[in-house]
Amino acid sequence: MRSRDMEKIKTYLHQHRGRFVRELCEYLRFPSVSADARYRRGLGACAKWLTAHCRKIGLNAELCRTKGNPVVLARTPRAGNKKPHYLVYGHYDVQPPEPLGLWKTPPFQPRIIGHSLFARGASDNKGQHFAHLKAVEAYFKTDVELPCDLTFIIEGEEEVGSPSLAGFLRRHRTRLRCDAVVISDTTLYGLKYPTLSYGLRGICGLEITLHGPSRDLHSGTFGGSVENPAMAMCQLLAGLRDEKGRITIPEFYNDVLALSPFERAAFALHPFDADSYKKSLGVPQLFGEAGFTTVEQCSARPTLEINGLTSGHQGEGGKTIIPSWARAKLTMRLVPHQTPEKILALTAVHLKKLCPPTVRMKITTAAGSDPYFVSPESGKIQTVLGVLRSAFDSEPLLAREGGSIPIVDEFKQILKADSLLLGLALPDDNAHSPNEKFNLEVFAKGMLMSAYLWQQLPRGQRAAER
Amino acid sequence: MRSRDMEKIKTYLHQHRGRFVRELCEYLRFPSVSADARYRRGLGACAKWLTAHCRKIGLNAELCRTKGNPVVLARTPRAGNKKPHYLVYGHYDVQPPEPLGLWKTPPFQPRIIGHSLFARGASDNKGQHFAHLKAVEAYFKTDVELPCDLTFIIEGEEEVGSPSLAGFLRRHRTRLRCDAVVISDTTLYGLKYPTLSYGLRGICGLEITLHGPSRDLHSGTFGGSVENPAMAMCQLLAGLRDEKGRITIPEFYNDVLALSPFERAAFALHPFDADSYKKSLGVPQLFGEAGFTTVEQCSARPTLEINGLTSGHQGEGGKTIIPSWARAKLTMRLVPHQTPEKILALTAVHLKKLCPPTVRMKITTAAGSDPYFVSPESGKIQTVLGVLRSAFDSEPLLAREGGSIPIVDEFKQILKADSLLLGLALPDDNAHSPNEKFNLEVFAKGMLMSAYLWQQLPRGQRAAER
Repeated sequence: MRSRDMEKIKTYLHQHRGRFVRELCEYLRFPSVSADARYRRGLGACAKWLTAHCRKIGLNAELCRTKGNPVVLARTPRAGNKKPHYLVYGHYDVQPPEPLGLWKTPPFQPRIIGHSLFARGASDNKGQHFAHLKAVEAYFKTDVELPCDLTFIIEGEEEVGSPSLAGFLRRHRTRLRCDAVVISDTTLYGLKYPTLSYGLRGICGLEITLHGPSRDLHSGTFGGSVENPAMAMCQLLAGLRDEKGRITIPEFYNDVLALSPFERAAFALHPFDADSYKKSLGVPQLFGEAGFTTVEQCSARPTLEINGLTSGHQGEGGKTIIPSWARAKLTMRLVPHQTPEKILALTAVHLKKLCPPTVRMKITTAAGSDPYFVSPESGKIQTVLGVLRSAFDSEPLLAREGGSIPIVDEFKQILKADSLLLGLALPDDNAHSPNEKFNLEVFAKGMLMSAYLWQQLPRGQRAAER
Repeated sequence: MRSRDMEKIKTYLHQHRGRFVRELCEYLRFPSVSADARYRRGLGACAKWLTAHCRKIGLNAELCRTKGNPVVLARTPRAGNKKPHYLVYGHYDVQPPEPLGLWKTPPFQPRIIGHSLFARGASDNKGQHFAHLKAVEAYFKTDVELPCDLTFIIEGEEEVGSPSLAGFLRRHRTRLRCDAVVISDTTLYGLKYPTLSYGLRGICGLEITLHGPSRDLHSGTFGGSVENPAMAMCQLLAGLRDEKGRITIPEFYNDVLALSPFERAAFALHPFDADSYKKSLGVPQLFGEAGFTTVEQCSARPTLEINGLTSGHQGEGGKTIIPSWARAKLTMRLVPHQTPEKILALTAVHLKKLCPPTVRMKITTAAGSDPYFVSPESGKIQTVLGVLRSAFDSEPLLAREGGSIPIVDEFKQILKADSLLLGLALPDDNAHSPNEKFNLEVFAKGMLMSAYLWQQLPRGQRAAER
């Protein structure tokens, strides 16, 4: 590619910025929540809109059925000559918007305030993969030849653990064979800190229900003679973490890969400031596993979190009852080489041992994903560091991501492809929280990054092959 | 009173049984929930209906305003001659009906199934004081002279701690001066086990909120570096009770009146069967403070119960968050000579000591009531044991009630009057639970009991005065 081509693309991306934002707003209006059956219609409409939009750009797009929500598959038209092939992964489903009362603007009515676009799904993940789509549009509309083939694979079940995607990848294994997968669904530390993530935490989840009396009981008449399931739940969960922030499930840490001195040095370069971090989260004091820095704690160490707790009276005022049951939703973030299966099994054994005979325990487990890790010193990673340097005009950071992208490990297992994690969500973008947003300058840089990527990735690959 | 008079009353009560049940159903149709502002209209309509009904019976009834919900005051017309004066206390407000899904019949559409009338408030407390109203109706309609003056005082805030009644009693202190207060709002162990309660537990409540991050956080991005308020809540509450069922708040047991050998012997006569009790509650195993029988545990020992627990995601599916806050609703049942003020203060001090610096704690306290206790060997208690023997044709039991009637201690303090607790709620009547009911045979016996009471109480009193 001649540098004039890149200028044409840059000019196009700049000239059409306003329209791109309007189109993204249109995309964000669909309440495509996958965890809650009430939003099914919004989800289907969103997938259809996306398919149509991909066609408008010039991609060959299909809406592919699965047992769950459909996958949008959109490919660049193939010329005869063999080019490298990259997948771009994203997801059009979003987290539930609740609690609605905490949103300053309605979650599915996108609003621009300052430099940010507020809406559920703005950064996680619609805005991020939309930047890649717009970069491809720029290649097409400026008649600059794409030096590679691309396939966008945008699914609708990421927020519920991607139950259908592994099967989809297996069914379409041949046409999806690729040289790498590009995923923008991780954190960007700041506009001056483009970030390349070389690892992800895995995840597994479980729901524990403790059943006590067959109905809520009058706490005066019966109080003192039967176990309170809410108290039993508190005692059960309280014992799972010690005062040093260590998880007490036996053998929980057995398979944990220790942080290398190289990684600890790379993490120490992150622009982390404990005071402003504390302030941005609104907590009176930070808390984490003793012996690790905050950056390490939330990316390279496993966790156990209570995501939800429900028992007894939830409404206004008091209700003098012994609740009939108590429920807790838990997730654990895993690091290499922990596996969801083993951790869930260890947890269940431990809970069964701890559960008192005064209540009945029911455990259901949720879809998990393995942690992911590639060497931060590999060739592809070095090429991408160059792309980030060009697009953001700053020295990029190496990071491990604390979140989980269930599908990354499956790309590795099924397609034998590495994933390149080029996050575009700022740390304060409120992913999974009320007032989720997407920074519009990051959107612009993200389109540029994508444009550079399709230029430099094939070049790096050809150099490596020579 | 001649025995022919009692026969006339018995006949009247028997002949009009069907109508009494229909009238009670009418009364139960009002959703007079006091703890939830959404039910305000049902509450007002209920009070008006009750006032009109008292007038229909022949009482001089007034609907008396308070700062909260109105009190229905209904008095027998006074003749010139001085008779003993008794108050009959009841409450027309009811517990919230939630969880609605567990009701077999709608809570405010009374249904008779077998010998029981199902509705919220059926036994707690509409059915119980209605029995007393019908006994008075029988005296009036059969032209049998009542040997005493009666004042019904039926309030609408019992389930929220009777905030207005103490003031009401003080304002009307002169006209409410009385020889005793009769309250049917406690447990009847069975049709063959008429029960006289000589004590009540007190109660105090508090709501604890732990605030962590200013918003729900992504458990991947931030997990491991900040406290999870739900976990902090579990650890805080778990420590409040030890494995022997003892409450661990320092000094909590300091003022507890020890059970006397006389009381332990009386309690041992209760027809208690651990297996059927366990079965009726649906629990796999009983649990209570070591060293006490079940009857003692749930009437003469203090408790701490979690009534509600709320944090994070409550809906379907998963949500990978660190919740912003966690809330627990707690009540403690108190025994003589504990006081709500002291116990709440001890609890707050202890919680503040336990609360980690990683969250912000907010405690709000709820209206409490003192425990109540009269000697089971006093003269009035002996008279009432005779009434129960006549009405139920069985040997009555002496008991202490595990529940709380906030107003009993105020009758003692403000009116200097003892309360006679003549419960008509069977242990399986599901007070405060879904499928609350009232046994219609107990309703009939209760009317008879009330009729005997107005005959024998004045006689016992005159005998004592001679």
